[in-house]
Amino acid sequence: MARVRTAMAAADVDVLLLSVGPDLPWLIGYEAMPLERLTMLVVPADAEASLVIPAFEVPRVVVRDELFTVRAWGETEDPVDIVAQLVGSASRAAIGDHTWSRFLVGLQRRLSSAAWVAAGEVTSPLRAVKDEAEIARLQAAASGVDRVAAALQSGEIPLVGRTEADVSAELSQRILAEGHAKVNFAIVASGANAASPHHHASDKVIGPGEVVLCDFGGTTAEPEGEPGYCSDITRCVYTGEPPAEFVEAYAALQDAQARSVAAAEAGTPAEAVDRVARDRLAEAGLATWFIHRLGHGIGVEAHEDPYLVDGNAEPLVAGNAFSIEPGFYVPDTWGARIEDIVIATAQGPVALNEVDHDLAVVDR
Amino acid sequence: MARVRTAMAAADVDVLLLSVGPDLPWLIGYEAMPLERLTMLVVPADAEASLVIPAFEVPRVVVRDELFTVRAWGETEDPVDIVAQLVGSASRAAIGDHTWSRFLVGLQRRLSSAAWVAAGEVTSPLRAVKDEAEIARLQAAASGVDRVAAALQSGEIPLVGRTEADVSAELSQRILAEGHAKVNFAIVASGANAASPHHHASDKVIGPGEVVLCDFGGTTAEPEGEPGYCSDITRCVYTGEPPAEFVEAYAALQDAQARSVAAAEAGTPAEAVDRVARDRLAEAGLATWFIHRLGHGIGVEAHEDPYLVDGNAEPLVAGNAFSIEPGFYVPDTWGARIEDIVIATAQGPVALNEVDHDLAVVDR
Repeated sequence: MARVRTAMAAADVDVLLLSVGPDLPWLIGYEAMPLERLTMLVVPADAEASLVIPAFEVPRVVVRDELFTVRAWGETEDPVDIVAQLVGSASRAAIGDHTWSRFLVGLQRRLSSAAWVAAGEVTSPLRAVKDEAEIARLQAAASGVDRVAAALQSGEIPLVGRTEADVSAELSQRILAEGHAKVNFAIVASGANAASPHHHASDKVIGPGEVVLCDFGGTTAEPEGEPGYCSDITRCVYTGEPPAEFVEAYAALQDAQARSVAAAEAGTPAEAVDRVARDRLAEAGLATWFIHRLGHGIGVEAHEDPYLVDGNAEPLVAGNAFSIEPGFYVPDTWGARIEDIVIATAQGPVALNEVDHDLAVVDR
Repeated sequence: MARVRTAMAAADVDVLLLSVGPDLPWLIGYEAMPLERLTMLVVPADAEASLVIPAFEVPRVVVRDELFTVRAWGETEDPVDIVAQLVGSASRAAIGDHTWSRFLVGLQRRLSSAAWVAAGEVTSPLRAVKDEAEIARLQAAASGVDRVAAALQSGEIPLVGRTEADVSAELSQRILAEGHAKVNFAIVASGANAASPHHHASDKVIGPGEVVLCDFGGTTAEPEGEPGYCSDITRCVYTGEPPAEFVEAYAALQDAQARSVAAAEAGTPAEAVDRVARDRLAEAGLATWFIHRLGHGIGVEAHEDPYLVDGNAEPLVAGNAFSIEPGFYVPDTWGARIEDIVIATAQGPVALNEVDHDLAVVDR
């Protein structure tokens, strides 16, 4: 909270307003319910913070270190009015990035003279640098999904003859069993479906002789009042012997991924790390099919700063946590991606995911 | 889409902008990914609609009935700029209720002369009146969770000796097995935890001689390009013979719930239905402990218009779908709630949930 107030002062922000989304659990360990009854933490620059919350959700809240007081509202009160009163005459307000626009529109109607900025301008630079306890949670999250990936690679999770959706459901159950409180996504994309990076999991039955791209992650379960941290991993397996053309492309991808992990040093611009993977895939004639950025930051949110993308010249700093996930996607044919979570440290990049990066060949 | 454009004209809205949240799947059958890469449908009052979407998510989209064209954006483009260009000189813009505030702030910076309203002012009255196909989906959703509730009541799902979280996970699996694509919540609150209406599910072990309040629901799985509809049910079971005091209170609650279902006729003000339950609980000395509104609308969203709450004098209309869920919550002691989804029809209210409303007593 002290660091947030310092950042507010630097950004000339008089009041910070946080609702649904990751800033709130990151700051006070409480996650707002994503419902129409408003929960909002009001942090004035120079006064005590207040959590405006539906009265009957008060039992869910743990107040740690007297970080805020609770302002409960009853079913016939208007919480937007309550927040507006707490904001008072602030001239520059920061609104939580994920806050529902209906609440921002309501606040703007009541506070017509205030200027508005996104809260991420205050919180994101702080969240992007992880301390040791946060890195430990990211490591635990990564180790959990590593074990799920190992079960895919060993053939312990059967693929052939099952639908993508069925495999996705099994991945989800295993993610939960590995210390996660929730699953954020469990992409299973087989054959030509692997050419769609955000394909989810369909009723398509997985056949023999197909690539199966699995990209999955969740948010860890933590003690009450503590935020969870995210995992995110991608591995590919092939159901039977892969064709030489795919093996060759995969080898280039694997090399591109390893090289870009090694390049992700503190001090290196984020876009330069993206460039390492892109150049290596270009050598293999695959650059056309690498249609997304190299990676995204990760923490309490699945995607956050820093983004490893062309145009982001910001240098990485020690404590940044991010994915490195090059891929290639050939429409109507196949696709592949390899993804690890990496920490930039003073001693160089450290990949948290350690499960095999090779293309696993399974016989069922 | 035609009805939306008519409502836009009536509300003097020049452009409607929909992103994450239920309006988008309700209108075009596509659900935006809740990530930092913006997906936004731009519906000008007098021009073709455009879906602004990350290029590599285009394969996820099914365009039905030429409702819109696709405007894909690449990884180094700024989608907020693209939306701002499509909006042009609109003087009154409606922004999707759940749209992330960071995108609204960005749009407001680029479109400084536009006035903003919440899209719900346009879409909510339309969404609140369900047609036959929507009611059929709500019925299928309700029947699915009825079967899960029956398994709780029969003792098929063991409770004593398990943690609330473990039972919640089993409920979640059963909800998915009953035709739902996702679980929205699976509250399991035992003993004194039942006094917290939005208690989720803790590591507390369920003991003998406790009330176990279970409130759960999800969103149905539908064919690609079709939106899912929500279920939501609450039933209570008691692990062993309940004390007379609880039995008496529960009987009053059950009567209050049945009476308010019967009162939910088209033409009746929403708040009057809430009043029926409140008055009946007052007779039993329980009104103090009924600390939330009677119910909420339900459809593609778990909570939507109409809300059955004191202060909402709007009359119900045929086609409204809503929960009726009175409860009592005695701090540090126990709580109970009974919830059905009900449709207001020209022939009177119809409850979609038909599983037993009695307090089930289970021996394990």
